[in-house]
This record gives sequence, structure tokens and C-alpha cells, in this order.
Amino acid sequence: MTTIKNIVVAGGTHGNERTGVALVQKWMENPGCYNTLCPSANVQLVYGNPEAMRLNRRYRDHDLNRAFSQVCLDSTADVDQYEFRRARELNKLFGPKGANTKTDLLLDVHNTGSNMGLCLILSARDPFTMKASAVLTQEFEDTWIYYQPEERSVSPYFGTVAKADVCIEIGPQQHGTLNASIFERSEKLVQRYLELTEEWNRGQLQTRAPIKVDVYTQLRDLGYPKAWAGAPIAAMIHPDLDGHDYCELKKGDKLFRTFDGKDILYEGEADGSTSVWPIFINEPAYYEKDIAMSLTVKTEEMW
Amino acid sequence: MTTIKNIVVAGGTHGNERTGVALVQKWMENPGCYNTLCPSANVQLVYGNPEAMRLNRRYRDHDLNRAFSQVCLDSTADVDQYEFRRARELNKLFGPKGANTKTDLLLDVHNTGSNMGLCLILSARDPFTMKASAVLTQEFEDTWIYYQPEERSVSPYFGTVAKADVCIEIGPQQHGTLNASIFERSEKLVQRYLELTEEWNRGQLQTRAPIKVDVYTQLRDLGYPKAWAGAPIAAMIHPDLDGHDYCELKKGDKLFRTFDGKDILYEGEADGSTSVWPIFINEPAYYEKDIAMSLTVKTEEMW
Repeated sequence: MTTIKNIVVAGGTHGNERTGVALVQKWMENPGCYNTLCPSANVQLVYGNPEAMRLNRRYRDHDLNRAFSQVCLDSTADVDQYEFRRARELNKLFGPKGANTKTDLLLDVHNTGSNMGLCLILSARDPFTMKASAVLTQEFEDTWIYYQPEERSVSPYFGTVAKADVCIEIGPQQHGTLNASIFERSEKLVQRYLELTEEWNRGQLQTRAPIKVDVYTQLRDLGYPKAWAGAPIAAMIHPDLDGHDYCELKKGDKLFRTFDGKDILYEGEADGSTSVWPIFINEPAYYEKDIAMSLTVKTEEMW
Repeated sequence: MTTIKNIVVAGGTHGNERTGVALVQKWMENPGCYNTLCPSANVQLVYGNPEAMRLNRRYRDHDLNRAFSQVCLDSTADVDQYEFRRARELNKLFGPKGANTKTDLLLDVHNTGSNMGLCLILSARDPFTMKASAVLTQEFEDTWIYYQPEERSVSPYFGTVAKADVCIEIGPQQHGTLNASIFERSEKLVQRYLELTEEWNRGQLQTRAPIKVDVYTQLRDLGYPKAWAGAPIAAMIHPDLDGHDYCELKKGDKLFRTFDGKDILYEGEADGSTSVWPIFINEPAYYEKDIAMSLTVKTEEMW
């Protein structure tokens, strides 16, 4: 990443994640909230999924934030599904996904019901987003870095239509609601991201001393226990684990509890490793995806 | 209420309120969980809204728990809306609403995202549900009584197809999710309700000494500040108030916070009273109903 000329700030990519919706709405009505923070770049605001916002639901026909893989974008099928049409529209406006995209940086503001604080999700080891995110972990309490690497053309996320992106995932906030203190912290964080972009464009951010960060790297998703694929879930997140995102889970720790009160323990990984760090624990939107939590591995790095 | 012969335990009247769904499912598969607790009555289990459960949404076309007024049940309109059809079906099975209903007691298990603990909602001053609920406030922590009086034929709630009903409203639990400790406490509470019914049928519950209870009586619903009807909300629940259900709110206390950080204070009631006790604060399902919270009045009574 050299100079960042075009930035997109998105909210409402999931229609019921209202922090981003309210942020974009406020900034559209009050451009002074953002338009002086990064004078070296052009900043655009967008509502990802207006139809889902109207319904106050995650999506109407299909999860929009799973519709941006190159295969999805190139397809001419599924035109009857709103989100596939919308993904192609957004790709036309801010992409096209790939080397010739118009957008250098996309900040996509999401919410989670999980206890994840201000989570910065990086999809690639991009020097700017790594440095800026590291700075933010120093400046804001309860800020975390989740690294979810994936080949960019395959990745289904909206952010990947840009050269670089950060998915800002903020919780715990119940879908369809607003939490005033979360809104205020989120707005400050996105504003700082724009200021740090200005610092980068002036060549100053690059010269900051390396920062020690904890990086939580995606390992695998973990489903709920079920009698067979498609059956109702046979157990709930264990009360000892619920709400303990980013905490070490060791082999033998309590993982689920069945409806008749039996504990199911974590058995370790197939490769013999005995610790993981779960996130997205009990996220409401992931029941339909059969994800009880995402397991990550924690490492310490200098960014 | 004399003898209680027919009891219905319902879950999933709202499809994404999963404590009741899981409870009914567990009990259907394991009748031993409930069928010895009240041998003097016939206990039936029912999923209120199977179609909404499948969608993991509150409802498909219309809020089922707002479709049981006599006018709604008598109407032959809206047959294209699933929940109006389902309400008439449930009324046929467990009603018909009115003096000749087959059901003496309906326990309807709901969840709320608000911090309301185990809330027992009584729709009438029925001697049995008053006494049983009062006993439960002694036996279970974080148990509350909300009295929401309404002329029975006008009331839109499922429970009102029975002679007596309690809506058991449990939170905070995010819609679409399960919380293991909430599930376990809820199951014990519903089981105790059946045991207390047995006590009533034996004439024993009636002879218990009066119990001092705090009763929260519905006063009015309070909407979000908006520039005009139908406009987006102009403020959020104030951080000092969010999560503080059942606490006294006095004239001058902080009520909302605007998106630019200004506080909106509670101004008191039109009749000059200066205190209310809000519940259902920031309930996700009530954004679409434009209810930011329900205001109640707290009184101490002997039940």
C-alpha cells in the first residue's frame, strides 16, 4: 500500500447491525464529523444493505457479506436474490474487485452479539492496516486484532473489493439495537482510523516504533453438537465459556452444556495442540451457519 | 379459579425466543421432566409459531402474540398472513377464547433482550397466578412481577385464550440464541409452577400466609425521540439507564443520549407524578413498535 487516495466507510452491510447504520447516517448529515480528518484522501460513505436496514434484519435473501467472492460477482445467476444484485452494484461502485479497484481502503463497521469489544479484523498482512490497527490497540481499551487470512479473490467479504480493508466488529450489542457507549467509542475509533490514514499518506505512520500486539489468527469454526447434520442443536455454550471471548480454552475445559445438564469438554485439536482462543462465542447470526464459535490461535507479534 | 384441569405450556410463540423452544422440545422428548409434577391436571405442550422457529425470527408475517384479540380471532380477513391463521388454529385447539375455553392455565415462555431476569407477567388479578407467582419471587432470585391489566377480550396475547395465564419473560438473552444458565433456571421455574398448581388443586396453596411482593404495574410505553413520526430514531437509551430495568427513574434523570452526545432527561408524567420504573429497556423486538421502554409504577402488596 503506497498512498491511500480513496476510502469507503460502510455501515449496514448487515441491516440489523445498527452502530454502522447510525454512524453513516450521522456523518451523511454532518460531514464535519469526518471530512477534515484525512484531507489527502477522498472519503465516501455508504449503506451496504439498505433493504435489510429497512427490515432491521441481517439480510433479505442472502448474507450480503458472503456475496463478494469473484465467482459470485462474475455470476449472472441469482438475480432474483436482492443481495447478489446489491453485491454486483457495490462492486461496480467501489471495485471492481482486483488490481484495478477504485478503492484503496474500505472500513466496514459491523456489530456482534459476542463479547468481542472493538475487534479489528484484518484479511491480509497489509502494512498500513497492520500499523494503524496496532496503534489503535494502544489508544483504545478493549481493542483486539483478529487475523483471518484468505485468498482475496475467494473471500466473500465486502471489504475485499478494496485494495485493503478492515472489518470493525463491535460488541456485545444485540442485533437490531443501539448501545450509546458502543456508538461513541466506535465513532472515535473510525475517526482515528481516518487520522492515521492521513499520517500514513504523509509518511509519518511508517516511522513509528514497532508495537507489540496480540494477534488472534483464525484456526477453524466450531459447530454445535448435533445428533445428525440438520438436527436441532443438542447442547448450549457452557456458562463458564459464554462471554469469555479471547480467553485461552485448554483441553479438558468446559465447552458445551447439554439440555439435561451434562458438560461437554474441549478435547484439543487433531494436530495434538491443546489450547485455542475462541471468539464469536454464541453469536446470534451464526446459529444458522452452524458456528458456535470461531477458534483462533494467539501469537505475540511486533507490528 | 377453582380447580385447574387443563394446562398448556407454550414455547416459540416468538420463533427466535429459544428458551421456550428448547424447553418444549426437551419435555416432548422426555415427558418425565413434567408429567409427574401436577397429576391432578392434564398438561399439554405446544410450539406457538413453528414457522417463525424455522426462520429463527420473531414472526413471519405478523407478531403472533398480537393476534389473539377477539376481533382478530373472529375476523376472516388476513388469511394470507401465517400468524393470523395460526392464532385461529391455536384458539381452536386451546380456546375458544372466553368463558367456554378448554384451557384453565397457559404458561407462555418468552425471552427478552432486556435485563429483566425471570419476569412473571400477569394479565389479570387471578387468585391462583397471584399466589403462585408470589411464592416464586421467594424461591427464585431475580424474579419479578409485572402486572399488565387489560380487558381480556381486547388483549392480543396468546395466554388470554385460557382462563388464566402467565407470560414468563426471561432475560437478558439475545434473540435467536440460548443461554445455558437461563435455560436451567427457566426450566426449574416452570416445573415449580406446575407443582404449585398441584398444591392449588389440593387446596394447600390457598392457605399459605400472605406474601409481600413488589408489583410493577404497566403505566405507558415510551417511544424513542424522533424528528417526526416514521423518522429514524434521534437518540439512544442513555448509558446510565440501559440495563437498569425495575429501577426508579426520577424527573431529571438521564433518559436518552443523542448521536452528538447530548443528554435528554426524564420530565415526569403529565399528571405531575415524578417517578416511574422502566422495564423492557432497549428490547430489540420493540424498535419496530417504537417502544424504547415500558414505564411502570411500583407498589408493595400482600398476595
